[in-house]
Amino acid sequence: MNLILLAPEEIEHSRLARIHDPRRLRHLKEIHRARVGDRFTLGVEGGGIGHGELMSLSDREACFSLGALDAPPPPPLPVHLILALPRPRMLARSLEHLTALGVKQVTLLHTQRVEKSYWQSPELAPEKILAHLVLGLEQARDTVMPTVTLAKGFRPFVEEQLPALIEGRRGLLAHPGMARACPRGINEPTLLLVGPEGGFIPFEVERLLEAGCEGIHLGPRILRVETAVTALLARLF
Amino acid sequence: MNLILLAPEEIEHSRLARIHDPRRLRHLKEIHRARVGDRFTLGVEGGGIGHGELMSLSDREACFSLGALDAPPPPPLPVHLILALPRPRMLARSLEHLTALGVKQVTLLHTQRVEKSYWQSPELAPEKILAHLVLGLEQARDTVMPTVTLAKGFRPFVEEQLPALIEGRRGLLAHPGMARACPRGINEPTLLLVGPEGGFIPFEVERLLEAGCEGIHLGPRILRVETAVTALLARLF
Repeated sequence: MNLILLAPEEIEHSRLARIHDPRRLRHLKEIHRARVGDRFTLGVEGGGIGHGELMSLSDREACFSLGALDAPPPPPLPVHLILALPRPRMLARSLEHLTALGVKQVTLLHTQRVEKSYWQSPELAPEKILAHLVLGLEQARDTVMPTVTLAKGFRPFVEEQLPALIEGRRGLLAHPGMARACPRGINEPTLLLVGPEGGFIPFEVERLLEAGCEGIHLGPRILRVETAVTALLARLF
Repeated sequence: MNLILLAPEEIEHSRLARIHDPRRLRHLKEIHRARVGDRFTLGVEGGGIGHGELMSLSDREACFSLGALDAPPPPPLPVHLILALPRPRMLARSLEHLTALGVKQVTLLHTQRVEKSYWQSPELAPEKILAHLVLGLEQARDTVMPTVTLAKGFRPFVEEQLPALIEGRRGLLAHPGMARACPRGINEPTLLLVGPEGGFIPFEVERLLEAGCEGIHLGPRILRVETAVTALLARLF
């Protein structure tokens, strides 16, 4: 927890913050070994970042005196990530990685090789997704919550949503065996599509290329989804 | 398991391989749902890669008829990674990521902010480390085992080992706040140093810069060690 992310309702007259949730109280005590007077980095959800001093800490509440929370959060990546729904444990970690890296728009997509049971996972409950996004923001000292949407059908996604998403963005389909190596250091609005374990099937690759995506690859190594997503984002931006 | 990695003693007269370990037998049955006649990618440790056909599968043994195992493994990354020893769970995942990405030389280093207890972790047992390296190779379809060495003192490492390691390599110290952004697509022998959670202390940074390392950063976001290692490798190579 490199930043304490405050919900607007946790701030009183802009100078005082109170948090009550057991997770952060425990983290302050056990990991930070926090003491009254300690200085912390705090940020308000969707807003600025600054410092505050711990005024009190109990089993029920931590109270901070706030300085100006006026530093901007780190810049986001100019990418909308379309990710084939990974298996639940991988989803959790991938959400944390991609949030820490600065992705702000994520669509979780069904494809042929996504196991249908994944869509029933408790990890897809909005509060579970939110918890992982918060961990990613706390890690990277960011305040801007990503938006995660679910696209449970491949064909409706390609026909109804993809044309609008690719408009004004460079569409990149990351898939082993594509002709072109992943470009480096591009600085333009991007739509990045990453398949499931086992990849997109040929029919899906064809539809995505037809829709205007460029196929790119990361080399001969087959990477886990969470490794591939981090590697792609680090190389592209 | 995108590749079945064979130890030399698992191969009989170059045309037949037998494996007996429960982990891979279970994986073949439960994940691959393997059947006699199925074709698999196999490779011999430190050697070539090819295909083989499953001849029999029981609770005790899988037997493969081998084609030529003569395709080369994917190229390694030209890097020796010096990684401050992460906490055990993070170490396990980091070893898998970096092996899958093609790192072949790893030194796990003690620094001021590495908790001393981490050096007592069962995760550091050679057979545990090996297990994670094997998982990384199986993932990336590689056969060349990385070498992992332990450097339990920072000062002896800097004084006795670093001068020889940096000879003929570009030394890069990844640390927040360094002057230069991580370079992209370098293709030269590199020594990459990555600190622990909380970073190197200023004394350590000074010693490493004095020893000839260039300081580089990954931007304003603070990343977990496993995310940072993947991001650095993907951007550098």
